[in-house]
Amino acid sequence: MIAFSSVNFLLGPITLGLAVLMLIPCGVAWYTDSPDLIPFIKSDVLTAVFALVLMLSRRGKLSQLRVRDMFLLTTLSWLIVCGFGALPFVFSHTVAGFTNAVFESVSAATTTGATILTGLDELPKDILLWRSMMQWIGGIGIVALGAAVLPFLRIGGMRLFHTESSDLSDKALPHTRRILMRLLAIYVGLSVACCAAYMAVGMNFFDAVNHSMTTMSTGGFSTHDASFAYFDSTAIELVAVFFMLAASIPFMIYLPLLAGKAIHVFDDGQVRSMLGSYFIVTVLLTFWLVLTHQQGGGSAFRESMFNVVSIATTTGYVSTDYTAWGTFSIMTFFFLTYIGGCSGSTAGGIKIFRFKIAFVMLRENIQRLLHPNAVISRSVQGRVLSDEIVGSVMAFSLAFACSVGVIAMILAANGNDFMTSFSGAATAMANVGPGIGDSIGPVSNFAALSDGSKWILCFGMLLGRLEIFTLLVLLTPAFWRI
Amino acid sequence: MIAFSSVNFLLGPITLGLAVLMLIPCGVAWYTDSPDLIPFIKSDVLTAVFALVLMLSRRGKLSQLRVRDMFLLTTLSWLIVCGFGALPFVFSHTVAGFTNAVFESVSAATTTGATILTGLDELPKDILLWRSMMQWIGGIGIVALGAAVLPFLRIGGMRLFHTESSDLSDKALPHTRRILMRLLAIYVGLSVACCAAYMAVGMNFFDAVNHSMTTMSTGGFSTHDASFAYFDSTAIELVAVFFMLAASIPFMIYLPLLAGKAIHVFDDGQVRSMLGSYFIVTVLLTFWLVLTHQQGGGSAFRESMFNVVSIATTTGYVSTDYTAWGTFSIMTFFFLTYIGGCSGSTAGGIKIFRFKIAFVMLRENIQRLLHPNAVISRSVQGRVLSDEIVGSVMAFSLAFACSVGVIAMILAANGNDFMTSFSGAATAMANVGPGIGDSIGPVSNFAALSDGSKWILCFGMLLGRLEIFTLLVLLTPAFWRI
Repeated sequence: MIAFSSVNFLLGPITLGLAVLMLIPCGVAWYTDSPDLIPFIKSDVLTAVFALVLMLSRRGKLSQLRVRDMFLLTTLSWLIVCGFGALPFVFSHTVAGFTNAVFESVSAATTTGATILTGLDELPKDILLWRSMMQWIGGIGIVALGAAVLPFLRIGGMRLFHTESSDLSDKALPHTRRILMRLLAIYVGLSVACCAAYMAVGMNFFDAVNHSMTTMSTGGFSTHDASFAYFDSTAIELVAVFFMLAASIPFMIYLPLLAGKAIHVFDDGQVRSMLGSYFIVTVLLTFWLVLTHQQGGGSAFRESMFNVVSIATTTGYVSTDYTAWGTFSIMTFFFLTYIGGCSGSTAGGIKIFRFKIAFVMLRENIQRLLHPNAVISRSVQGRVLSDEIVGSVMAFSLAFACSVGVIAMILAANGNDFMTSFSGAATAMANVGPGIGDSIGPVSNFAALSDGSKWILCFGMLLGRLEIFTLLVLLTPAFWRI
Repeated sequence: MIAFSSVNFLLGPITLGLAVLMLIPCGVAWYTDSPDLIPFIKSDVLTAVFALVLMLSRRGKLSQLRVRDMFLLTTLSWLIVCGFGALPFVFSHTVAGFTNAVFESVSAATTTGATILTGLDELPKDILLWRSMMQWIGGIGIVALGAAVLPFLRIGGMRLFHTESSDLSDKALPHTRRILMRLLAIYVGLSVACCAAYMAVGMNFFDAVNHSMTTMSTGGFSTHDASFAYFDSTAIELVAVFFMLAASIPFMIYLPLLAGKAIHVFDDGQVRSMLGSYFIVTVLLTFWLVLTHQQGGGSAFRESMFNVVSIATTTGYVSTDYTAWGTFSIMTFFFLTYIGGCSGSTAGGIKIFRFKIAFVMLRENIQRLLHPNAVISRSVQGRVLSDEIVGSVMAFSLAFACSVGVIAMILAANGNDFMTSFSGAATAMANVGPGIGDSIGPVSNFAALSDGSKWILCFGMLLGRLEIFTLLVLLTPAFWRI
């Protein structure tokens, strides 16, 4: 039996938290005399009422949550945030139509950053702020998920990061809660630092607040249609690159900071691999630009670095139309879509550690071909790689590939062209944001797609953000049995 | 130490075999008074001389071949067939330029079927025959490789099919040789049957001979520019479908036939999965055609079936331009490129058993998520799935994906568009033949590509045909050490 009563009860505080945070754009709407004040109040009241209903639905003693309940709880948390987060868009009429409102909301809460809005520069501040806040909320959600829930659920090889704090037994729960509070403190701290840094290099307060939230969540929503091309500032781009990277490394690494100790970011193999791979691609594209587009080395490096880091960390800011750099660049950015950041960060994608595990297996395989009888020990991140983890990663990769394939085929059946369908499916599943092609490319947006296409992309964004299996198991009959 | 002397010596008979087979088009050229007679004689003499040099290069006692020698022997075998097989194209001037000659030869020997030739209908019969024969030679080569060498080399999970006959120790060698001779007999028998069937449904003798060779090798070269659209005959297409499928199931299944016993094709799980997946895709495309192109159910099914089987079995015949069926069809055929047939057949691609293993891991993973403590036994094809095999399949999949990615990026850097680069890399690696897009699509060919693109595609075809690792290990420094 699923412990519905407990699941509902736990969803209450999450919904209430959303209602409380919604008071902020509400306040902004009031302060700026925005026509969105009433829509925001409506949304907030509905959210708060729903939260209370959930919390009052508790009957008798709460039962201990088991693994299955965690799947349901996690998925429902995101659905609630997506659903109630969409209300301001629905009520305010800023967003045309219900489908668009939901798309924008799902894209925000999953930190994808694909948008159906144009004319961002003219939008009311409250709506812009709410979009950014939704990404920020999604960001901390995913950090919590990666630290506590996913390793416990053994999803997609995340068992590799199973520690005491990801043991959700009664005994370990206070410890887990303590860790989560610390991660929240880190997240807030980094966001504030990011905001201050943006202001220091010339962003105005409102832009800095919004972009710090969408940077730290690797979400990628901007307050300008032109995204980072609007600022055209090397300093601002450097700050963005620094904090996008900071948001893509495991947040656990930051914990010693709270105790006033130094942290050793580069000691982590995942971080080194991530930075190394981003650097190689940046250099490759720089050479490409210099050799084929007669661009100066400095500006080529700047443009390559910003956009590579933005797409690979699954943020999705854009400083220039990199699809105009020729097919080589298009292909590079298409493959970059999949990479992602580190586990336990806000970044999406397939993630660096899975590639590391796959490459360990590849190396082991080649060694075994040459020395059939050799005993080969395998480890990643200083941990022995169990067969269970290898199997999980394989299952995850297959599920990821199949999901991208099926979504791409549905998008194609909906009348989208090859590149839009394929890169749309990839960018949704990896929670990146921009796709490739005329309609969903870096200088375009998702508004022109059909409603059907938008709904399937919403599903893809949720599937990708919840590491596929959290959502997938809910769709198996076995889950609901017993 | 690599046993160069033994490797050279064993390459001798293979080269000599090629020289002997080259006498057939030689004879045809003589009989038809073709201007290609001299070119064929030149090629044949050169090949024969090289064979003798190899066989005479033996010094002292032959040393026992070890695993490493097998990698070298296998790769060199294909290189020799590709190299000397290209000579008639070079000398005859039918094929414009050295690069084109090599491309056509590699495409033939790897049973890919991508061509740079147009005006096939007007070409001399000797050259057409040699192209088909090269595919046929490549076909039996891959059957032998799959039966004896690859399971022994433990490549890409082929260890799953390790039997007594794939044990290349001195003791088992006579047994292995016996098995290989029987497989050859089956291959010849099926080819003759295919030829007879083609003639029975209306093909002329020459077309039937050529197409039977390129059907049984799942190669896909035709004697007509229009491929199977030239015949426009349901009966001929049905024969082709039957024998393409027959060529894509494990040849070991046919062995009882030689002892006069019945065979049970559908008892094999791999065969069932293959037929099932092809059928599903065919039905899907049929519905698509009926619903969106107002086509009759019968003709839609016929067109879908023929082209799905042709692409999925990595043959590459074309009966109509399926890329004109809309993006959904393009996407479907793009993904079909990867699937391939069964292990131990002439088909290429990733192959059904690897997908089966991956899906077993996926199912196991989902079960483990729901029942963390359950003991789950895993098996495929009635064999327990060892962790070594799972690891090999994972390594293979990664190597395949990376190879397609890198080749696609090089093709893109060479100035090809996104779809040409991506589908070109896939169709080469999977040894299918036609790609997607204006320049390399089903109704087009590879002539227009740059020389650089053709060379990288040649590399891709060889890499794919040799199950990646056979060639890849030769590129590691560790292979040449000691």
